[in-house]
Amino acid sequence: MINVGIIGGSGYTGGELLRLLSTHPEAKVVSVTSRKLAGKRVDSVHQHIRGLCDLSFEAPRAAEMAERCDVVFTAVPHGTAMDWVPALLDNGARVIDLSADYRLPLEVFEAAYGIKHRAFREAAFGMPELHPEVRGARLVANPGCYPTGASLAAAPLVNAGLVDRVVFDSKSGISGAGAEPTDTSHYPNLAENVRGYKLTTHRHYPEIRQELTRLDSKVKVSFTPHVVPAIRGILTTAHAFVREEARDVIQDREEISRIYREFYKEAHFIRFPTGVPMLGAVRGSNFCDIAFEAEKGSDRVVIISAIDNLVKGASGQAIQNMNLMMGLDETTGLWFPGGAP
Amino acid sequence: MINVGIIGGSGYTGGELLRLLSTHPEAKVVSVTSRKLAGKRVDSVHQHIRGLCDLSFEAPRAAEMAERCDVVFTAVPHGTAMDWVPALLDNGARVIDLSADYRLPLEVFEAAYGIKHRAFREAAFGMPELHPEVRGARLVANPGCYPTGASLAAAPLVNAGLVDRVVFDSKSGISGAGAEPTDTSHYPNLAENVRGYKLTTHRHYPEIRQELTRLDSKVKVSFTPHVVPAIRGILTTAHAFVREEARDVIQDREEISRIYREFYKEAHFIRFPTGVPMLGAVRGSNFCDIAFEAEKGSDRVVIISAIDNLVKGASGQAIQNMNLMMGLDETTGLWFPGGAP
Amino acid sequence: MINVGIIGGSGYTGGELLRLLSTHPEAKVVSVTSRKLAGKRVDSVHQHIRGLCDLSFEAPRAAEMAERCDVVFTAVPHGTAMDWVPALLDNGARVIDLSADYRLPLEVFEAAYGIKHRAFREAAFGMPELHPEVRGARLVANPGCYPTGASLAAAPLVNAGLVDRVVFDSKSGISGAGAEPTDTSHYPNLAENVRGYKLTTHRHYPEIRQELTRLDSKVKVSFTPHVVPAIRGILTTAHAFVREEARDVIQDREEISRIYREFYKEAHFIRFPTGVPMLGAVRGSNFCDIAFEAEKGSDRVVIISAIDNLVKGASGQAIQNMNLMMGLDETTGLWFPGGAP
Amino acid sequence: MINVGIIGGSGYTGGELLRLLSTHPEAKVVSVTSRKLAGKRVDSVHQHIRGLCDLSFEAPRAAEMAERCDVVFTAVPHGTAMDWVPALLDNGARVIDLSADYRLPLEVFEAAYGIKHRAFREAAFGMPELHPEVRGARLVANPGCYPTGASLAAAPLVNAGLVDRVVFDSKSGISGAGAEPTDTSHYPNLAENVRGYKLTTHRHYPEIRQELTRLDSKVKVSFTPHVVPAIRGILTTAHAFVREEARDVIQDREEISRIYREFYKEAHFIRFPTGVPMLGAVRGSNFCDIAFEAEKGSDRVVIISAIDNLVKGASGQAIQNMNLMMGLDETTGLWFPGGAP
Repeated sequence: MINVGIIGGSGYTGGELLRLLSTHPEAKVVSVTSRKLAGKRVDSVHQHIRGLCDLSFEAPRAAEMAERCDVVFTAVPHGTAMDWVPALLDNGARVIDLSADYRLPLEVFEAAYGIKHRAFREAAFGMPELHPEVRGARLVANPGCYPTGASLAAAPLVNAGLVDRVVFDSKSGISGAGAEPTDTSHYPNLAENVRGYKLTTHRHYPEIRQELTRLDSKVKVSFTPHVVPAIRGILTTAHAFVREEARDVIQDREEISRIYREFYKEAHFIRFPTGVPMLGAVRGSNFCDIAFEAEKGSDRVVIISAIDNLVKGASGQAIQNMNLMMGLDETTGLWFPGGAP
Repeated sequence: MINVGIIGGSGYTGGELLRLLSTHPEAKVVSVTSRKLAGKRVDSVHQHIRGLCDLSFEAPRAAEMAERCDVVFTAVPHGTAMDWVPALLDNGARVIDLSADYRLPLEVFEAAYGIKHRAFREAAFGMPELHPEVRGARLVANPGCYPTGASLAAAPLVNAGLVDRVVFDSKSGISGAGAEPTDTSHYPNLAENVRGYKLTTHRHYPEIRQELTRLDSKVKVSFTPHVVPAIRGILTTAHAFVREEARDVIQDREEISRIYREFYKEAHFIRFPTGVPMLGAVRGSNFCDIAFEAEKGSDRVVIISAIDNLVKGASGQAIQNMNLMMGLDETTGLWFPGGAP
Repeated sequence: MINVGIIGGSGYTGGELLRLLSTHPEAKVVSVTSRKLAGKRVDSVHQHIRGLCDLSFEAPRAAEMAERCDVVFTAVPHGTAMDWVPALLDNGARVIDLSADYRLPLEVFEAAYGIKHRAFREAAFGMPELHPEVRGARLVANPGCYPTGASLAAAPLVNAGLVDRVVFDSKSGISGAGAEPTDTSHYPNLAENVRGYKLTTHRHYPEIRQELTRLDSKVKVSFTPHVVPAIRGILTTAHAFVREEARDVIQDREEISRIYREFYKEAHFIRFPTGVPMLGAVRGSNFCDIAFEAEKGSDRVVIISAIDNLVKGASGQAIQNMNLMMGLDETTGLWFPGGAP
Repeated sequence: MINVGIIGGSGYTGGELLRLLSTHPEAKVVSVTSRKLAGKRVDSVHQHIRGLCDLSFEAPRAAEMAERCDVVFTAVPHGTAMDWVPALLDNGARVIDLSADYRLPLEVFEAAYGIKHRAFREAAFGMPELHPEVRGARLVANPGCYPTGASLAAAPLVNAGLVDRVVFDSKSGISGAGAEPTDTSHYPNLAENVRGYKLTTHRHYPEIRQELTRLDSKVKVSFTPHVVPAIRGILTTAHAFVREEARDVIQDREEISRIYREFYKEAHFIRFPTGVPMLGAVRGSNFCDIAFEAEKGSDRVVIISAIDNLVKGASGQAIQNMNLMMGLDETTGLWFPGGAP
């Protein structure tokens, strides 16, 4: 049994780790921290796990956590994780960091987040479908939610060298913005609305760009996020414009299909639904559903991916990474369907 | 391993049985029927279970189903189940009927549903918290969604003989109305709306009345259902007016609490949250969350229950019944938290 | 032309007054106050009125407001309005107070709101359908949103002396809770949920009780509010239990209908729709739609009313009051349909 | 007073015409047709206009309608309007056709809609901001909802010759799909979801392309529509990629702003909000709110437009056209704010 710790367990990604780990056959949460809530029962905040979790929030130090845990998830804001990660690693724990602190090269991180990194380390980028080096890693940087949906949608075509430019237009449920009420999450502002934000400046852009230019250094990448009236889920519409010489290739549906299936042949969580991806089909699950359609007589392929932002886009992928780091099958504890309807 | 069959697997309760049974450690779905869809892959309808179910819809006869299955769930409309149930039983299968056909005494059923029963049998009423006789039963009538939320909310107080009259005002997600589009389920008609319907004539009323008058024959029961803009969940507000002699009792919060905890002391799926029940806390799970508040200086206690109508209100409770019929712990395969947020 | 001032114009009721008055043929908003936003353009907060309002927020004193305005709406929190109202009146303005400060007798107010009244005055209760004395009044206390929907639903039957007990179960859109983000208005907490709150202690209860016991001093009244996933609207379900001697009366649908139509024969904003009331049909409008159904062979009548909480439940009714105070037809500037779908 | 007829008044655009015209000071609806509902009261279908409309549906012939009406709106499906329009025109009525039958050149229409045109006529394209020839026209083809939001968002930049390629990613409320329940409009399928559809083949594409290539024949145009969980509204995200020589221009926010303001200097219904456009700010109104942001150091400008699909995207724009055809100010009867919150 893997002993698990969660640093920063009061938010949505913390709650989702608790939900998912409560049925994991090989892992057991032994400590959940929250400086603010130390001493309170965990299920007083996360009412949905009542009956399945007897823990109270604690406020231990990193060394102590590392001693009690085989694996620690850091589910704290960016800029805070870096205060935990090195001490956890140095005291022997494996770490999966759900913040942005270890996802990007040092300079790119500092430019995007506007803070100086106090404790940089090399990490595996925790998107197992693109990064087999997660297996056995000691530090994994769990990707952002948008980068997961966007990269998985376009990677096969980009990897095949077909794509000149790809424009990601993403639509996210509001849980990605966290458990704290804001103007954006205020029901009258979000219901019956769609809200574009950080139209050209979202911090997830460098991650998306990094993942795709790894596969084809010349590909041009654009990204604009929106929030939609949904709790969970990200639907990403990728408008891919192919190179002149690839125009014929994309008119052959079978060929695109072959490229995707080959690229993801060992990826258990990638599915190709009949029809367009629907958020309900992945809700609560670790699946990423992908479909595509080439525009007749044009250079455009539209690819759509659907994930649950809190699962494949955060805590589920983190557990998938844990499984691989610990030598388990990647599906352990995650092999259940989406929650439609 | 229990071999399971599902008669009528194309709707929401069928899909939910498939979702829940896909992770049940002791049961395996071996056949799913749909006359209309016979030959089509099950995951072409239920996209969310893609990857976890390789079956195609079949159209076998009852005897054949009974031969292949230890337990059969009938998830067909009322009036249709009666064409399956006796043959399934007579050929050796245990049956859990999710329709209304076996929930009520013959005459009550015929009056409420306006049809003549063609094949009546005695069944255990499948609400294990009130009906221990489910354990070992061969035929279980799975309760309606509203009766589950309503009866569980009020049963302890009614059983204690305190209640003179109880008014149930229920608010349901629309999935209870099924997978077929209707005027009521049309998004522009339901979003930003609350719709009362069958204000005094809903067919679930006789079930609620039956369950509560079993506990106190004199209790007066009223019921009005509404649909709200939600996919899943029923929140039931029970306005209980107590007998003259019980007015003091209800002013003692500890005493009410004691009555509820004692009544449900062996019920794993009943929880008492801090604060009011929230549909998110039970979403996708088999829990029923209950809270109450007595009006100061009055004869009224307000009790609120929250369930997922497709789980504790239908398919989850059906599996809970299966577990008990087959001698398993009632929580087997159902012990996971709600899907908040 | 009536010169209008709005004290406290930054919230939802202020914005709604501005929206409705922007097309009123006989009134013109000349000043909108907000201490916090003084100097900022009004349309920087209320983007929807951009192009129809050139004002900036001001922070004048009461005497100055009274001098510039024929009518002043006070749209500030309870406990604050009392600091404005007397000075406005004494300097010659007519006042419509949208807070709770003048809705209840002094002692009832102080008990319900837990504050000492610093400046009590007699006011007309601003529900014109029940209070013809609004016409010509100098101070009108605009009712709460729940009391409007509840009182209008039950008043005719109560007035006819038929009702022994009435239980109001109300379902409100969240805009009633204001423009400030809270845990309750946080989208992931409200969407796909129904939330009962202040189950037996809501401050609107004394208003409802006051309005109905005026009509029949013996009627028993209960009230429980909920928020539902909707921006605007209150649907109130009134479960009325009639006196023993009235059981036959309510079984005659025509008779109930006659009672309602007679009671509201001069009320322009009361409508009796075919079928159940729908929030969409009243959305954005000043209408209150009412329907009823008696339970066969029982003592219960279910009445449902639908209003827009920000219009008939607040700013629209306030303008209706203004019209009557100023000798206009009550429908002036308010005679437009609901915004379905 | 303009006498108005509505052919096909039972759907959402018909209901919206009735809603908007019920307060129009210069027009009066004298006839509403529906073959299916002839004889029924109009407010039995459109409950929201109850009290403001005493008409019943009729089934007159075109010549009769033309005789009774100065202006006729045809709100019937494409392929049906062409059976009405010529007879209405030839009998002296002015016509505003809300279908697609007269929006495109003959061959383009026949290719896009797959039907042979039986009665082609030249029409003015009814987007007054781009087509001043609407003033005084006898036949106006009212644009599609997506083309309105998309064309208005990009027209100024395209007209300035800056744009090489523009990708429209549109998010629409479901009322655009009509009043008939479908799988797509089924609440459990749409709530908590975003659904791309006709990803590269939507019939509104030729309209968008037509409107923008009129302004710059070389611009490349792509379009993908989605439905989101909203009743009303279209938010269009335009990803515009500018020509090499225009890269510097777009980095100057003032210059883009100048281009937009100049282009729309006489357009009353175009607004430039502070911050991003919100559907609530235009809900129920004829406004189109537009904002933009250039990506730093890139060739991309993101423009977002928000309209109410049933108003500026259909019936409101149709009335704007009527006003201009009849020599009225374009804002007559339409000068009211959006319905936020």
